[in-house]
Amino acid sequence: MITMSDSKKLIYAGKAKDVYESKKEDEVIVSFRDDITAGDGEKKDNLQGKGHCNSLISSKLFEILEKNGIDTQYIKLISSGFMLSKKLDMIPLEVIARNIATGSLLKRFPFKESQKLNPPIIQMDYKNDEYHDPMLNDEITIALGIATQEELDEIRAITLKINKILSEFLKEKGILLVDFKLEFGKDKEGKIVLGDEISPDTCRYWDINTLEILDKDSFRQGQDNVMDIYEQLCGMIVEEKDIKNWGI
Amino acid sequence: MITMSDSKKLIYAGKAKDVYESKKEDEVIVSFRDDITAGDGEKKDNLQGKGHCNSLISSKLFEILEKNGIDTQYIKLISSGFMLSKKLDMIPLEVIARNIATGSLLKRFPFKESQKLNPPIIQMDYKNDEYHDPMLNDEITIALGIATQEELDEIRAITLKINKILSEFLKEKGILLVDFKLEFGKDKEGKIVLGDEISPDTCRYWDINTLEILDKDSFRQGQDNVMDIYEQLCGMIVEEKDIKNWGI
Repeated sequence: MITMSDSKKLIYAGKAKDVYESKKEDEVIVSFRDDITAGDGEKKDNLQGKGHCNSLISSKLFEILEKNGIDTQYIKLISSGFMLSKKLDMIPLEVIARNIATGSLLKRFPFKESQKLNPPIIQMDYKNDEYHDPMLNDEITIALGIATQEELDEIRAITLKINKILSEFLKEKGILLVDFKLEFGKDKEGKIVLGDEISPDTCRYWDINTLEILDKDSFRQGQDNVMDIYEQLCGMIVEEKDIKNWGI
Repeated sequence: MITMSDSKKLIYAGKAKDVYESKKEDEVIVSFRDDITAGDGEKKDNLQGKGHCNSLISSKLFEILEKNGIDTQYIKLISSGFMLSKKLDMIPLEVIARNIATGSLLKRFPFKESQKLNPPIIQMDYKNDEYHDPMLNDEITIALGIATQEELDEIRAITLKINKILSEFLKEKGILLVDFKLEFGKDKEGKIVLGDEISPDTCRYWDINTLEILDKDSFRQGQDNVMDIYEQLCGMIVEEKDIKNWGI
């Protein structure tokens, strides 16, 4: 069992994850905490076992993406809650892909609840707490020096590919991928690589038959069985043989 | 002197302009009113002579654009405040081009006041009172059925061309074109044509030497000489010979 009580240096502390130095200079350890937040950090709680669930789900989905030719930060799941990852220079973008209209999109634009979006909508928000993560367009992103047009085109293409791979994989598990948020970084060669996590904190997953919520919307809506929902989703995505392979 | 007291039918009433039917089915009369509003319509006033000024400035700038190969709605200035225009099927976009960072942009993104933007930023807002004119990106615009990708690319290219033509023309008049808002429509052949107005209500103009405000920001800031400023700008852009040519 790895804990961070030894001398590992904290590089970054997020709302629900920490990033620590690793033995190798180009690797880091991502720690999935049990904290959960919503509403720009206004609503907060701590749910025992959430970090465990999210680390398993993220590891599984990163493995699926790697098998399908997507470069991700993922190296291996070291232990429950701790993922060994490539060190990336993160691009401050929240790249959101939407297959179905729901959530904040409906407050800002006249889409119908649960309207199918085909082709999916890609939206890029500026990851900036002071400015409350405002939505960008390409011209503003470039003027702010966040990314070049070529990088934005590449991020868009990778995101659409990820959407296809994950939507198909999850469909087989009985899950509808409604929307999701990705973050990208650059590795030491300057290549754009998928970072962050893909978990019920960062995606909307619905039961494909009942359309039941299987993600953080349960917390946003104040349900009292949030952890049950996370565990249910984890059981649908992660198999016994995955746990064995990881040796945790 | 033309007034709208005869039987002309009102087609559209905006915050500061009305559009009336004309004798010909594919033409309309745009009436520039003396009303002035700001802050999503919250701040309102009526400034005698504003409609006159804006109709003259818009006519002059549309003429400059037409001479430089831009298709506009402009046919002729019939009388002070009344412009005969091609009837357009308006696209509900506010297309904003910014050469210098100021105003609402600074509240939403970390640009510096008066920072030069080169290339200029183009931003498209959804003209929709109920949703308070939210900023769009191309994917959302297409998903809402507002325009196709090809139309957005064309609108962007025309806007950059307009920016170049107007910036050069105004520079010779001692005016810095800081930013401006355009609206486009389609004519009966489906061609994308510049509509609306180009006036101190819809642009930021600064004195090129003193950087003094020559536009609606004077009203937003509560200055008591707004009409003087509009008249000053009108005098800088519109020449005696223009007035003679229009025969008004």
